[in-house]
Amino acid sequence: MSPENLLKQIQFIKEIDKIKYIQRKTKLFNSDRQENDAEHSWHLAMMAIVLAEHANAAVDLLKVMKMVLIHDIVEIDAGDTFIYDTQKNHSNTDEERLAAQRIFGILPEQQAEELIAIWEEFEAGETNEAKFARTMDRLEPLLQNTSNNGGTWNEFGVTYDKVYAKKSVMKEGSTTIWSFAEALINDSVEKGILKK
Amino acid sequence: MSPENLLKQIQFIKEIDKIKYIQRKTKLFNSDRQENDAEHSWHLAMMAIVLAEHANAAVDLLKVMKMVLIHDIVEIDAGDTFIYDTQKNHSNTDEERLAAQRIFGILPEQQAEELIAIWEEFEAGETNEAKFARTMDRLEPLLQNTSNNGGTWNEFGVTYDKVYAKKSVMKEGSTTIWSFAEALINDSVEKGILKK
Repeated sequence: MSPENLLKQIQFIKEIDKIKYIQRKTKLFNSDRQENDAEHSWHLAMMAIVLAEHANAAVDLLKVMKMVLIHDIVEIDAGDTFIYDTQKNHSNTDEERLAAQRIFGILPEQQAEELIAIWEEFEAGETNEAKFARTMDRLEPLLQNTSNNGGTWNEFGVTYDKVYAKKSVMKEGSTTIWSFAEALINDSVEKGILKK
Repeated sequence: MSPENLLKQIQFIKEIDKIKYIQRKTKLFNSDRQENDAEHSWHLAMMAIVLAEHANAAVDLLKVMKMVLIHDIVEIDAGDTFIYDTQKNHSNTDEERLAAQRIFGILPEQQAEELIAIWEEFEAGETNEAKFARTMDRLEPLLQNTSNNGGTWNEFGVTYDKVYAKKSVMKEGSTTIWSFAEALINDSVEKGILKK
């Protein structure tokens, strides 16, 4: 007999496969193929590994990696919300909370509670780990859009002010990475791929 | 000016995007859509998070997660090798070593050395972390194939003996997970989706 925990964990592992069908607005680098949430989450975890030295404060890298790997799992139920969507608030909607309860709730109780707490910590954005994880989450689409001649900025008519406002939270996680990002945003305006 | 390290790290982050185009033979759960290496690596990291309690020996979870997240990056240059391929040896080919040197070599030297060492540790399969990471790597396609009416076993005529031999290394990482997997393999024979 397999332990009861293992069967719940296997059920969870099957359920979260659905994240591979959640399409983001942003495209892969130098590409017109949309990225899905599993690919995005993998990339953020890799970014956390190689960029951790630039965090403003020392971070628990394992927790950051758990955060970025799970942060979009709620979208299995709640769907992806475009960050520049003015109709729908991106963060912490009731729909996402219900999704977290349902999906992480498949796991053994203690594990479910741990992952829900990590997800909520990421959403709240107040701890060093959450701030650094969010920096990763903002950096990847910036790199993608600049590689794609403006990408979603041009596709959806997003202007400099909005990009700058959404991206500037990056400095809370890493002033070094934000300096790089800020230069990239300004460079994008100069190149004409981001409109003022 | 951005520090020199950061520029190398950004270059690496862009380079590894290519893993999203590397198609595996196995399909997503209950699906006929092939999985790519980024999705696969994300899934293994999630599995490591929720299944770590079943490891035979206490493992450094952060290292296991790094292993599974990076283990297929060499395939950007070397391509995916089907585990039941009789023509081409899966592990540690010279091609993969060169790929590791080139791709991780984009990073600052110390970081490149760390990730190459972790990749080599995974390939060698001798430490507790490598054994547990390999258990994850064997479990995911087993779950996929059983959800897909035999999946690649039927597609490529792979029989019970070969599956059993390739999967039984799982017990080195977790006897609990191996017991579950063994039952699943036997059940697949009974259901007629795996031929003896």
